Amino acid sequence: MLILWTQGDPNGIGSEIILKAFEALKQSEHQFVVVGSYCMMKYYAKHLGLNVPIKEITALHEISPTADSEERQLYVLSLSCNIKARVGEIQADAGNLAMQAIETAATLCLLQKADAMVTAPIHKQAIQLAGYKFQGHTDFLEHLSRPYDKAAKAQMILVDRPSALRVALATVHVPLKEVSETLRRSDALRTSIEALSKALMKDFAIPSPCIAVLGLNPHASDGGVIGCEEIEWIQPELDRLKETFNVHGVFAADGFFGAKLYKQFDAVLALYHDQGLIPFKMLAFETGVNVTAGLPIVRTSPDHGTAFDIAGKGIANPKSFIEATLLACEIAAQRKKYQVSSGVEA
Amino acid sequence: MLILWTQGDPNGIGSEIILKAFEALKQSEHQFVVVGSYCMMKYYAKHLGLNVPIKEITALHEISPTADSEERQLYVLSLSCNIKARVGEIQADAGNLAMQAIETAATLCLLQKADAMVTAPIHKQAIQLAGYKFQGHTDFLEHLSRPYDKAAKAQMILVDRPSALRVALATVHVPLKEVSETLRRSDALRTSIEALSKALMKDFAIPSPCIAVLGLNPHASDGGVIGCEEIEWIQPELDRLKETFNVHGVFAADGFFGAKLYKQFDAVLALYHDQGLIPFKMLAFETGVNVTAGLPIVRTSPDHGTAFDIAGKGIANPKSFIEATLLACEIAAQRKKYQVSSGVEA
Repeated sequence: MLILWTQGDPNGIGSEIILKAFEALKQSEHQFVVVGSYCMMKYYAKHLGLNVPIKEITALHEISPTADSEERQLYVLSLSCNIKARVGEIQADAGNLAMQAIETAATLCLLQKADAMVTAPIHKQAIQLAGYKFQGHTDFLEHLSRPYDKAAKAQMILVDRPSALRVALATVHVPLKEVSETLRRSDALRTSIEALSKALMKDFAIPSPCIAVLGLNPHASDGGVIGCEEIEWIQPELDRLKETFNVHGVFAADGFFGAKLYKQFDAVLALYHDQGLIPFKMLAFETGVNVTAGLPIVRTSPDHGTAFDIAGKGIANPKSFIEATLLACEIAAQRKKYQVSSGVEA
Repeated sequence: MLILWTQGDPNGIGSEIILKAFEALKQSEHQFVVVGSYCMMKYYAKHLGLNVPIKEITALHEISPTADSEERQLYVLSLSCNIKARVGEIQADAGNLAMQAIETAATLCLLQKADAMVTAPIHKQAIQLAGYKFQGHTDFLEHLSRPYDKAAKAQMILVDRPSALRVALATVHVPLKEVSETLRRSDALRTSIEALSKALMKDFAIPSPCIAVLGLNPHASDGGVIGCEEIEWIQPELDRLKETFNVHGVFAADGFFGAKLYKQFDAVLALYHDQGLIPFKMLAFETGVNVTAGLPIVRTSPDHGTAFDIAGKGIANPKSFIEATLLACEIAAQRKKYQVSSGVEA
């Protein structure tokens, strides 16, 4: 596989975790290429004393795929050296470079010049300073994918490879008091289950994915005693979806995770952010990976941010980024198989 | 210590976990007395083949405290034998007996004839069938305590003794969409922190309790981007409370539990049910205990329900009930010390 690593915000921990991930993965059968700034990668390698041979390229065909793993270099498809490291700072030029790297990598994936992209974290304020109107990776990638796939709709899935835990969210960055209304209005229960089920088949080789759905209210409303949503529309909607999908629930969220019931399911659909993210981060803090399913490209990312507070200190942990890379390789391979078996041209 | 065990719903697992807890704890320095039905205790001991010597009493002074631990009997302060076991069923007579046991035990504690009560689970529908208007233990005990302490106000604290994790909830059985408004209207942030702080000093021997408060919205609103409550009133209220209490926050709940920050605090205040209960049950599923602080009596209970589905099968796990009993002993001892040191008469 040819995997593109976007550098993320160059003032964050992105370059460092990429350098460390390369050291961990360079013996693998896969080829990794950084998309970002060659000079910034060189800067961090020197600054952190990481002895990684780095080679600048301007196009993917410059890669020599025959090199022994011993001699392998970290290729950087360099977009600009016209930027200075200001470690830990929110800067427009950094936001701009981060977004250009995403656009370049996504385009190469969309054109099938690469198999998947793994994105180091970007900083929301930096990209806004650079003039971008996007919230982050997900909506930007959805936007870039649309010319290639009109139906492209991102569905985030949180995956922990070691424990095979997979959690999706029916609502993400929604204020708590608006979750109920947003869920109902957006038809998110149906669309999330559809997207999740499809992704599990296509990207995770699960023929009939078994999905657990959590309740909204404490004790999943306890039969309508604590809130009305479960009785009024969540359970009825779920019962309709059971005719098409292998879904189960609704489950009271605290007992579900306490009794480790997630082990019996291929994925869990949480109805709001903290309901899914609290247990996920507890079970998979260093090895958690975000997968953006539902797009024509394969994209994963680590489960952390730019970490400006520890940037440039050499103490960033590459574990989640390495997991994200390994999972991207698995998904890309699985998706190719799925497309062949279902007669879709690659 | 003299600890009263209320039998709970006699058709649930209460009698079984009491019999098992007695076997585990009979060598201890403490004296345990069941409040409930002698005949029901005998029935379960025989039915489950648990060889526990059971002795009926009608008043606490009938206990012979000098018995060697080898010869110890399980005393039952028997309220009625006029009831038949209907294992796993919701019955009015069972609900009635369960509530009478609570009233008797609470009264004995309020009159300082016993040191603490540990309550086996009751069934909400059974107590309603019996004509009680209470939701459960907490409001019933608050009601029973008021003649002895006008300011009695129950504050539930979830405690895991092995890990020293303590979680309190600012709202409990509130529908998710009403949490924000309930919090604001009820002044629950202030009253919970006051009650929690006081309980940690009085019952847990922590002189200046360090309390973490979680945010309401995803990422604790990310500076007001996801919801307005943190910026508008939660953080300002917390800043005012910091003048009096050793409180910290607000913390984004997912990162807080993922990074195990709870280890740095004496207790965590979650703003709603699942935010506190999901992580608590994950960390303390078998050893979790509920403590009802804020009352003139000491009361703990196990972190599970009547479990009608497994009642009478001999497979109920007494671990949480045993933990609840040990914690009740600790709290009762600590509260006596606190009262002496602060000049309050016992």
